[in-house]
Amino acid sequence: MINRVDILIKNGVVLTIDSQMRVIQNGYVAVKDSLIVGVGRSDELLAANLVADEVIDAKDRIIMPGLINSHTHASMSIFRGIADDLPLMEWLNNHIFPAEAKLTPHLVYTGAKLACAEMILSGTTCFCDMYLFEDEVAKAAYDSSMRAVVGEVLYDFPSPCYGNIEQGFEYVEDMINRWHAKSGSLITVAVEPHSTYLCAPKLLQRAAQIASKNEIPLIIHVAETLSECSEIKKRYGATPVKFLANIGVLGPNLIACHSVHLTDEDIELYKSFDVKVAHCPESNMKLASGVAPIPKIIDSGICVGLGTDGAASNNDLDMLLEMDTAAKLHKVFTMNPEALDSKTAVKMATINGARALGLDKITGSLEVGKRADIIVIDISAPHLVPMYNPYSHVVYSATGRDVVLNIIDGKIVMRDRRLFTIDIDSVVSEVQEVVAKKFM
Amino acid sequence: MINRVDILIKNGVVLTIDSQMRVIQNGYVAVKDSLIVGVGRSDELLAANLVADEVIDAKDRIIMPGLINSHTHASMSIFRGIADDLPLMEWLNNHIFPAEAKLTPHLVYTGAKLACAEMILSGTTCFCDMYLFEDEVAKAAYDSSMRAVVGEVLYDFPSPCYGNIEQGFEYVEDMINRWHAKSGSLITVAVEPHSTYLCAPKLLQRAAQIASKNEIPLIIHVAETLSECSEIKKRYGATPVKFLANIGVLGPNLIACHSVHLTDEDIELYKSFDVKVAHCPESNMKLASGVAPIPKIIDSGICVGLGTDGAASNNDLDMLLEMDTAAKLHKVFTMNPEALDSKTAVKMATINGARALGLDKITGSLEVGKRADIIVIDISAPHLVPMYNPYSHVVYSATGRDVVLNIIDGKIVMRDRRLFTIDIDSVVSEVQEVVAKKFM
Repeated sequence: MINRVDILIKNGVVLTIDSQMRVIQNGYVAVKDSLIVGVGRSDELLAANLVADEVIDAKDRIIMPGLINSHTHASMSIFRGIADDLPLMEWLNNHIFPAEAKLTPHLVYTGAKLACAEMILSGTTCFCDMYLFEDEVAKAAYDSSMRAVVGEVLYDFPSPCYGNIEQGFEYVEDMINRWHAKSGSLITVAVEPHSTYLCAPKLLQRAAQIASKNEIPLIIHVAETLSECSEIKKRYGATPVKFLANIGVLGPNLIACHSVHLTDEDIELYKSFDVKVAHCPESNMKLASGVAPIPKIIDSGICVGLGTDGAASNNDLDMLLEMDTAAKLHKVFTMNPEALDSKTAVKMATINGARALGLDKITGSLEVGKRADIIVIDISAPHLVPMYNPYSHVVYSATGRDVVLNIIDGKIVMRDRRLFTIDIDSVVSEVQEVVAKKFM
Repeated sequence: MINRVDILIKNGVVLTIDSQMRVIQNGYVAVKDSLIVGVGRSDELLAANLVADEVIDAKDRIIMPGLINSHTHASMSIFRGIADDLPLMEWLNNHIFPAEAKLTPHLVYTGAKLACAEMILSGTTCFCDMYLFEDEVAKAAYDSSMRAVVGEVLYDFPSPCYGNIEQGFEYVEDMINRWHAKSGSLITVAVEPHSTYLCAPKLLQRAAQIASKNEIPLIIHVAETLSECSEIKKRYGATPVKFLANIGVLGPNLIACHSVHLTDEDIELYKSFDVKVAHCPESNMKLASGVAPIPKIIDSGICVGLGTDGAASNNDLDMLLEMDTAAKLHKVFTMNPEALDSKTAVKMATINGARALGLDKITGSLEVGKRADIIVIDISAPHLVPMYNPYSHVVYSATGRDVVLNIIDGKIVMRDRRLFTIDIDSVVSEVQEVVAKKFM
């Protein structure tokens, strides 16, 4: 009997990122109806009688799960480099917020499209986003065939998007209803209060209730800077994490972005409530926010995903570079070269990111039954020769530019650096025109 | 009168890196007889009556000086990823030294060729190297038309290359005589004792004499790890820098690589002897060696270049990524986002690298009269749109893969990602064959 599949990728080094971290030296992955239907050794293919509509040769290539960007603000790609080398609060108050005051829904859509292009080209298949006019980001992801967790940013003051906070909650509920009905597994709506310093306890509790009722993630910036910590200490007499615990907001669906300045008690609280962490090392470095105690957090058994944060504080969305920085930063910061190894970095950017976002049943590893979110990395260029260890290559030597195939939910969205779901030329010229007019 | 030139690159954003750090928004650079003969605004070209054999349009591109890798071990590209996530001494003693024992001159040549390919493709025009069988590295650089400062590594124990140290000094003198006669400005031979812990005072003093006599750089690893510092403390009762001062080896031609663990007195000594520093942040991070106090060193007026170190401790030779890491690392380590800005990072990788190597009269900036070491970076890809600030783009957003043109000493060595001086396919297959046989 012949087994017909849609896509067969073969002859590559397969990093499955399954529970045994199985590496298949000359392996294949088969895709049918958006799902992974086979993972194995290429020499078993003949016996399996597998016939594919599309056969992709991955000789001299690594086949691995698509990368998951656990925290970003996609549309901020239009502010890439608008202000650098500044402290977070000055950067935010004097540069980013004034620029964001000029945003329109359409500009948010276009910026998100630009970000989707960059992410697809650098091997990301799924991103977790927070912004204003977030419905536009959902549209951009959906139109680009990207998997995304999206959430309108909520805070105490009126939003240019939704108006007052009551309308904000309505906006969120509306997004949940529309997107979960429409998009299959592609778009997940989350509830995303900005932070403990921009959101009153009542807002945070209401947000948590909505997330809990809908069984979706609750996403918030936590303990990103020292000034945030001292502000919360002043207001509530507690660390941001302890404050969130006190008002009953910690839980397994909470994704605590950044989590730079944590006490041991904070880590204990995360652990006991199964809180997830989205770690953004490059942004924390660039804004001089600090170094999150990630090795300690991971050792405590807490799930940590990896994120780029927005392009304005990074200034790219390249998850391959982010893994490199994460692994190196924690080695030097702990003065321990074993603090965060390449395998751990890859897990943060794949299966642990998926788990953080509540998506590990459908993505984050190459296993039969999961949605087909797959990337292929070319390892024939001089900077990737020779190869002793594929994890080492992915983390320390490859960049997003080495990704040559990106499949999301079974659909080829990029091949040989060509994008299939985004008209990049028109996105780029639109961005350049608007930016020149509005922001320069 | 018509002025005929060899190459004219026009319509690009020119970062001159001259003493005024002049940026020309729509600029040109003209090359004749290996020299830069014109730098200016493109709209002045007509009046200048400039006619070129080769005209290169740099619209949507940045034109800047070629990058200078101030410290590397090029041939170690063949050990890329052979051992990661280990402390320096274990990495060196249990993995790198045993692998190096199997080296042959030809393998050093081939590894250096691979490194030259990677460097050219990522925008480096000049590198400063230390290794064994270094004559082969000089050959590889020369055959690849790369500018290089090369030096045989010297230490107390017998070398597989030259035998005993007397023969080592002969090897160095021979290299100086042959290469300085042969290569024009392309190859500079330096004297390179490995470190204070592998070289006795007499070796170091003799090396300094040879360097001084020949007016060439003296290059050494200094204060890279805490274990080195405590070893030198035990042996000599001083810091590595103070020890070098005590034996009379500090001077303006000394390039002190790494310089991670410095006291304030060490920095004062560097300052008063005009010692140069080669900073290798990614390697120092990956080996958990520590963070060099670079902002403090720069503030003291000491010249700091930037290096990747070897590919086995990085694991790439991409200077664009190195700038990014340097800028971010020092921000977070000092908790000051202004500690090392993008402009400073670019200077480290260009003019200050040139000055460290004693080559600032001929390279490191785009100025009339200098040798033509020029690169062009494409900024049209999604991860480089929009552009508010070219320095920010070079440091925080671009990677080596965005370099589309590399000119060294007036010769186009790479264009549109195609190498003209290296048969990369044969280099790659040779490396892969040897590595599989000898090291796997």
